[in-house]
Amino acid sequence: MSSIQEVAALAQVSTATASRALSRPEMVALSTRQRVMQAAQELAYQPNALARSLRQRETRTIGLIVSDILNPFHALLAKGVQDTAEQHNYVTFLFNSDEQPEKEARAIRTLLGHLPKGLIVVPTSGTRQHLASLPELPVVELDRVTGNPEATTITVDNIGGAHAATTHLLGLGHQRIGMIVGRQDISTAVERQRGYQQALSEAGLDADPALIRSGNHREAAGYQAAHELLALPPHQRPTALFVGNNEMTIGAVLAARELGLEIPRDLSLVGFDDSRWAQTMSPPLTVIAQPAYALGQHACEHLLGLLGGKRASTPAQMQLPTELIIRHSTGPPPLS
Amino acid sequence: MSSIQEVAALAQVSTATASRALSRPEMVALSTRQRVMQAAQELAYQPNALARSLRQRETRTIGLIVSDILNPFHALLAKGVQDTAEQHNYVTFLFNSDEQPEKEARAIRTLLGHLPKGLIVVPTSGTRQHLASLPELPVVELDRVTGNPEATTITVDNIGGAHAATTHLLGLGHQRIGMIVGRQDISTAVERQRGYQQALSEAGLDADPALIRSGNHREAAGYQAAHELLALPPHQRPTALFVGNNEMTIGAVLAARELGLEIPRDLSLVGFDDSRWAQTMSPPLTVIAQPAYALGQHACEHLLGLLGGKRASTPAQMQLPTELIIRHSTGPPPLS
Repeated sequence: MSSIQEVAALAQVSTATASRALSRPEMVALSTRQRVMQAAQELAYQPNALARSLRQRETRTIGLIVSDILNPFHALLAKGVQDTAEQHNYVTFLFNSDEQPEKEARAIRTLLGHLPKGLIVVPTSGTRQHLASLPELPVVELDRVTGNPEATTITVDNIGGAHAATTHLLGLGHQRIGMIVGRQDISTAVERQRGYQQALSEAGLDADPALIRSGNHREAAGYQAAHELLALPPHQRPTALFVGNNEMTIGAVLAARELGLEIPRDLSLVGFDDSRWAQTMSPPLTVIAQPAYALGQHACEHLLGLLGGKRASTPAQMQLPTELIIRHSTGPPPLS
Repeated sequence: MSSIQEVAALAQVSTATASRALSRPEMVALSTRQRVMQAAQELAYQPNALARSLRQRETRTIGLIVSDILNPFHALLAKGVQDTAEQHNYVTFLFNSDEQPEKEARAIRTLLGHLPKGLIVVPTSGTRQHLASLPELPVVELDRVTGNPEATTITVDNIGGAHAATTHLLGLGHQRIGMIVGRQDISTAVERQRGYQQALSEAGLDADPALIRSGNHREAAGYQAAHELLALPPHQRPTALFVGNNEMTIGAVLAARELGLEIPRDLSLVGFDDSRWAQTMSPPLTVIAQPAYALGQHACEHLLGLLGGKRASTPAQMQLPTELIIRHSTGPPPLS
């Protein structure tokens, strides 16, 4: 087997350069790298990649667990985290808990076996317990919170966003506004329901429990909940729906279409979270937009701050604003 | 510091159960787990999670590198891989190369430092070189191929899909069919262009080089290419576009809308790959659908087969079919 010295000689570079071309190619000019790779191939050089990697690579890694990789919001969170980590020369190990505490527990266990410097997590209902035995691990809670007052959290103003959505519908004249809310053990769902109820209450209306349905954040749940709400007797049926996340919103849209309801003539609809389909669908959807990419960026920066020892006396709990984007899925209620 | 024996005693379970409740909670009944966690907290039990994980966790991990995590097609590939790995008790380390060979190289290096059993990769132009020095690592190429004849590959029938899209447009009477194709160093782009050209050729038409634009697989590239094609003089301008991936398709849709073109009256459009926005947009888009989730599943199964020593005499090169789904973005060409 050849040595790195022989590879360097054949490629006509220094041993250090040859080694770097193989271990950190981005630091070596393309032409040099190609010459070294060529030489390595000709000489059948086998650097024992595993041993070398274990020796050379510091564990500049962080873990990220999102709860639904198929949700574009979470993909964008992941991209924000990953790009920021990369800028600071960290690599992100990405996991998907699929909204299942058991999968999250397994992801955390696997991560721990690989010595991450820290963890960013979009919590499930099990996260607080999973992390309780790991006080030594720097953690940032992203998008949702576990309720641990010691945690560093990056979220959006869910109450304000839900309040704006509901106020918008009230302003159009809706009185029976249904809400499809997420799981009661997920902070974002609880907060969005609170914002909805606050807005109703400020308008002198009581939230009608019959107009609130809870779902598990997925399309099928939104579809089911919308069908239930739209099957209420006419005097009770909502004239508008506010849906607590993007996946359930598409379910509600499909249910309304199936029932032959024209949006917004027969039913107004506001979703939480913007997306490409919300923008391109017919009609384009009124939404509460969230700065998903920026959430990911801030989460990563906060985690790197914790790693750098910038532990403040009180944990950072950053909240980013949301934005009501009025498109064409909301209008006045039908004349009854 | 307390011992696991003390935790077990307080929780009134065996030491083995206490240990399992902490290390593999999904194998222990919820009530037992809660009792053990409670006891561990009361006793401030510190299991030295890192050391324990390193000791206990076999590296039942595989690596997956997708090339664009923001593309829903890739998220679905990832989900297919991850679910399948999980069924076989493997954990997936997910990375995103962002279509950049340098990021891919770094992801591979990081992975190697963490001893994965194998790798599934959606290749970039750099993949073949990156893998050349790692003949010991079991690899499956997913969606795209590097051209290495020894590789195990899971792809779709890109030529057939592109042929079907083009034939559909020809059948509607289009003669000037533009194509927005991906990068020439990516196999899917080359194959889709070949299918397009074959269909034209079978219809007795020559592919007009002026009607073919190449882009980097992202929305902005599709937008730019569509603007260029639609700015051609009237006798040359395409009456239909076939776009080689989903992200570039949305760019083309937005360009057509910006120019005030009504789809399909003024311009027919077929995209490659189905998506939620393609289904919900106005008008719903005619597409070549790909079995993204199944691709991920098969890739994982093939990799696990390689790990299990099922190395056949010739590498598996599996190709899944695509499907033309005709919706409302295609129609006869405008009268000229």
